[in-house]
Amino acid sequence: MIEKFVLGKPFETFATVERLTPSEGEIPFFTTIDKGFFYKLSDNDIVYGLGEQVGGINKRGKKYISRNSDNPHHQEDTLSLYGAHNFLIISGEELFGVFFDYPGFMEFDIGYTNRDELTITAENMDMDVYIITGNSERDIVKQFRKLIGKSYIPPKWAFGYGQSRWGYKCEEDIREVARRYRENNIPLDSIYLDIDYMEDYKDFTVNKEAFPDLKGLCEDMKKEGIRLVPIIDAGVKIEKGYSVYEEGVEKGYFCTDREGNPFIAAVWPGRVHFPDFLDPKAREWFGDKYSVLLDMGIEGFWNDMNEPAIFYSEKRLNEVLERINELGKKNMGISEFFEFTGIVNGLSNNEGDYDEFFHNVGEKSVPHCRLHNLYGFNMTKAAGEAFERLSPDKRILMFSRSSYIGAHRYGGIWQGDNKSWWSHLLMNMQMTASLNMVGFLYTGADTGGFGCDTTEELMLRWLQLSVFMPLMRNHSALGTREQELYRFRNCEDCKKMIEIRYGLIPYLYSEFMKAATNDDMMFRPLGFDFKDEAARNTEDQVLLGSELMLAPVCTRNAKGRYVYLPEEMLLIRMRSLEDYDCEPLPKGHHYVKADLKELIFFIRKGKAIPVGKSAKNTESLDSDHLSLLGYEGAEYELYEDDGISRNVMGSIRKIKNKPYCRMTTS
Amino acid sequence: MIEKFVLGKPFETFATVERLTPSEGEIPFFTTIDKGFFYKLSDNDIVYGLGEQVGGINKRGKKYISRNSDNPHHQEDTLSLYGAHNFLIISGEELFGVFFDYPGFMEFDIGYTNRDELTITAENMDMDVYIITGNSERDIVKQFRKLIGKSYIPPKWAFGYGQSRWGYKCEEDIREVARRYRENNIPLDSIYLDIDYMEDYKDFTVNKEAFPDLKGLCEDMKKEGIRLVPIIDAGVKIEKGYSVYEEGVEKGYFCTDREGNPFIAAVWPGRVHFPDFLDPKAREWFGDKYSVLLDMGIEGFWNDMNEPAIFYSEKRLNEVLERINELGKKNMGISEFFEFTGIVNGLSNNEGDYDEFFHNVGEKSVPHCRLHNLYGFNMTKAAGEAFERLSPDKRILMFSRSSYIGAHRYGGIWQGDNKSWWSHLLMNMQMTASLNMVGFLYTGADTGGFGCDTTEELMLRWLQLSVFMPLMRNHSALGTREQELYRFRNCEDCKKMIEIRYGLIPYLYSEFMKAATNDDMMFRPLGFDFKDEAARNTEDQVLLGSELMLAPVCTRNAKGRYVYLPEEMLLIRMRSLEDYDCEPLPKGHHYVKADLKELIFFIRKGKAIPVGKSAKNTESLDSDHLSLLGYEGAEYELYEDDGISRNVMGSIRKIKNKPYCRMTTS
Repeated sequence: MIEKFVLGKPFETFATVERLTPSEGEIPFFTTIDKGFFYKLSDNDIVYGLGEQVGGINKRGKKYISRNSDNPHHQEDTLSLYGAHNFLIISGEELFGVFFDYPGFMEFDIGYTNRDELTITAENMDMDVYIITGNSERDIVKQFRKLIGKSYIPPKWAFGYGQSRWGYKCEEDIREVARRYRENNIPLDSIYLDIDYMEDYKDFTVNKEAFPDLKGLCEDMKKEGIRLVPIIDAGVKIEKGYSVYEEGVEKGYFCTDREGNPFIAAVWPGRVHFPDFLDPKAREWFGDKYSVLLDMGIEGFWNDMNEPAIFYSEKRLNEVLERINELGKKNMGISEFFEFTGIVNGLSNNEGDYDEFFHNVGEKSVPHCRLHNLYGFNMTKAAGEAFERLSPDKRILMFSRSSYIGAHRYGGIWQGDNKSWWSHLLMNMQMTASLNMVGFLYTGADTGGFGCDTTEELMLRWLQLSVFMPLMRNHSALGTREQELYRFRNCEDCKKMIEIRYGLIPYLYSEFMKAATNDDMMFRPLGFDFKDEAARNTEDQVLLGSELMLAPVCTRNAKGRYVYLPEEMLLIRMRSLEDYDCEPLPKGHHYVKADLKELIFFIRKGKAIPVGKSAKNTESLDSDHLSLLGYEGAEYELYEDDGISRNVMGSIRKIKNKPYCRMTTS
Repeated sequence: MIEKFVLGKPFETFATVERLTPSEGEIPFFTTIDKGFFYKLSDNDIVYGLGEQVGGINKRGKKYISRNSDNPHHQEDTLSLYGAHNFLIISGEELFGVFFDYPGFMEFDIGYTNRDELTITAENMDMDVYIITGNSERDIVKQFRKLIGKSYIPPKWAFGYGQSRWGYKCEEDIREVARRYRENNIPLDSIYLDIDYMEDYKDFTVNKEAFPDLKGLCEDMKKEGIRLVPIIDAGVKIEKGYSVYEEGVEKGYFCTDREGNPFIAAVWPGRVHFPDFLDPKAREWFGDKYSVLLDMGIEGFWNDMNEPAIFYSEKRLNEVLERINELGKKNMGISEFFEFTGIVNGLSNNEGDYDEFFHNVGEKSVPHCRLHNLYGFNMTKAAGEAFERLSPDKRILMFSRSSYIGAHRYGGIWQGDNKSWWSHLLMNMQMTASLNMVGFLYTGADTGGFGCDTTEELMLRWLQLSVFMPLMRNHSALGTREQELYRFRNCEDCKKMIEIRYGLIPYLYSEFMKAATNDDMMFRPLGFDFKDEAARNTEDQVLLGSELMLAPVCTRNAKGRYVYLPEEMLLIRMRSLEDYDCEPLPKGHHYVKADLKELIFFIRKGKAIPVGKSAKNTESLDSDHLSLLGYEGAEYELYEDDGISRNVMGSIRKIKNKPYCRMTTS
């Protein structure tokens, strides 16, 4: 059951799609405190949720702030990432979910200041609060997901492996990536275009020198079975003669400053204005621009920098330069020095800048900070709505960096700029389960890590998680070690993981589609299905569908890892699609060996999954000849459709051939 | 066996105390490459060593640079910490140790660029290389330790619990800490004085307003059984009339710039000069200054900021301000903006500044960068040598932030400014074992974490490791959550951990002294004693002495953890000195429950440890009435001495009363 409570005068976020009649009276479970809510935690309560946040599956023992932030350096004590997803499930003494539909900044102190206290505060109390009760965590999620609407479904090719790098400078770089993947017989479905394909980082333009014929390139790549996926950034470059800029100014589609002029910030293109995506007309206008690239044969995009990230605002930069000038005149002391470095480091993504610009909402001008967390959502919505108009029959790939609940209806998200860190590999898995709760099914992290130099070992281990992620993209930053798979000495090991991915795509797509069409989760914490203490407290394993449990190796130099089995399962140790062992393991704690070249995962008792052969890309997959891997006698219901049409009336096919697993004899 | 190879013209570091006759011919094991050395790693080789570095017990799969750095924000990909310890043991196909006695910057690529390649490079090849072969890792360490000389031994009271915080502003703050610890009956041996006790951060001065009578305070505290431990920083404030400054200038004891004038950097006091600790006369002069505080009754010190940390150098700051002025004149574009923030962020600890000052070594002027890693060592040496002169009978506590091998003869080190992060708790344990290899026995990390806000849970779990660390200090940074133990709601839980510490001090002191006098390790990786694959690859457990195995809980919200037992051991689950269980566990992998209030550790087969009662401080401990905890029939040889005299002719007492462990029945 979902009860809705309306506090004050909430801003309409469009996070939900069902219109509930608000309940009168007190919000259950919580005590209302000044600008917030309080809940007393019991010793064994687990707090799930918050979508994209650093902090594990159980969110206790940490503080979090919903304030979408461009934070590529996130680490253990980071308070905010790129998305804001104010949904929690408290599971223990009581069981309920709660969604605070509030687009401003909000703080969650989950047993942080005091171990047994959950305190949630916001800048004001204008919000809708939804309390969801149900007979299980999963039931609560499903009710909630029905409330917020069906999740975005990408084309099936988006389940293929993609290669990306900030640093591909020209057409030849792209062709080289394609060529070398094909030369090495590594499957590949997509190559991403980061900011350098644009002319001076201007949205919807192409650098004609570097990419003289993007349309032709696009066609050539498609012949190779590879799709190009360009980036679109939020900020529109201020440049006389640039049509997007000029139209936006003329029609008043940009966010404005206190004086009513378009607000000036700086990001990659230098000075930019921010489209007012909260304004439906601006959204439609911006969305239509994607046709420039769609018309070239592009079928997918990623929206970036849409927290929005601000390197600096014109006004603040001038103030800072002025102050530095003053400070520099006298002999700078230590406190002046710290002021100096402090104001310089405070220039980027300064919260104060979010007070300085305004959205045109209905007849009102609303300061950005009041609805900050909606910005990326509405940029994605602009794209998603446009694709429905511009490509009514064919699904278009769309994922975004920034998000709010509701954005999941229009696109997926990648988990933002991360690092080549082992801790970020673990976080990738943990976050995916939390994101599934709030509707983001099409998601994944930059495999191998975006910032910092990766290693072959980290890449292999990360691939062993990413083979299961809907979005499987290898992406890295300018200046870091190149990490296209063919660059590694033992490229063959990486290739086998990609081939395993392609063998699993029929299953993964099927599970994705079942979750998407049933408002269900593809990835779940163990505690959602198993109620024993050990399962509830497992932080480094997740369930996939009804069939699998994932337990990737997330540490350096490991020869294996500990795994908790909440029931008997089949351990699969896979070196390639042809070379693997199966070993039934009883319920309990196990140390499982996992050589660097071995993908390990578990098939749940009585279950089996379909596995096919690899292919050079998704379209070439042969889904007619699938074998079952798993328990003797198990069946699997495979969801299938054309992978293209928006009308997702797929069919279910029962697969019940004899499982092809080889039992180990030891 | 140790072989010494002299390459080029090494700088005399005084890392070693034995003078070996250099071998002629090729360095074994390694291939010499341009400016470095190469070794081919086998799949199962483990690389131990490097002392204070981020990267676990097995150092493979990462890159490291020996370049002492003030880096309080260190994380997974950090290359350098506060110390430089160029010692490795390669254990696998072959077994040998190597020490590169080289005080400049040096890089270790340990299977990072390529998994099977160890590449070590330096800026030049003027160095002594020692190759150590032996019949075990521990044997190699013992030979190496004999080469580098006996480890520093602190007074016994330094094994008590200490409270510190950057932020105690005045006498009353110190008295309050003492009062509240005593009121709560929490044992305490020391309170640390961070930079605020000084007048304007000037070494060897006291802020007379805040601390009108430090000598009196020191006496009052000693009546309470508490010692004060002040900080000493490397930089000497430039201030007319300040005697340390004026003498240093007059006598030429400061490092000089290219023009031969004292080099100007800025740290806490603002503009400072750096004493030239490489000059024996300067060392003696600076060392004698500690008498100012010794004469007030102070018996311990910590040396800080001695990498040396540089907030900025006068010259670079002026250049940066000038450049900002230029950049600010035109409309700053994105590349100018990144240049602007880049040069500002490059001001602190800029490597280029280390080229800009010089040491007076013999008759020569040597650029600092050539011997950078010796600076902290020689500051510690200045103190250590002075204490031998000024306090010939009584040990003085000394530990430093920066270090090089050799410094271990003059003082301990704390593990530098860390964070209230779970990953830093694990690192604390891993680093301690690595530091023991290179002679740093008196060590520990800031319990609860220095930077960021701690939580009660993290503090409790960290205490459960720190109870075993020779240096057990709770320390935190200005602006972070106050973390004196009495500030937590469940202060009683923390108190019990401190009481356990005091019950263990007889054992810990005994093990420390045995290790110090026998050139042995107090903490060892499991792979040093056990040769099976699982033991060799265990990263989150260490052995303590011959009796214990530590396996602290290092993750949030954990109800227990996995532990590998390389042989049968006794699991001790201790809630207080009076309330504990013992459970024998067989060799193998186990999941061990550990409630937040439970300290878990393991007693090795056939062993027992002495446990006493708690006391308000170390001096009040009753070491005549110790019980044995462990296996039936086991004995323990307790090392004892007065804990004060420099002459460490202690005695061994056999303890063989009946072990008092209660076996659990389940």
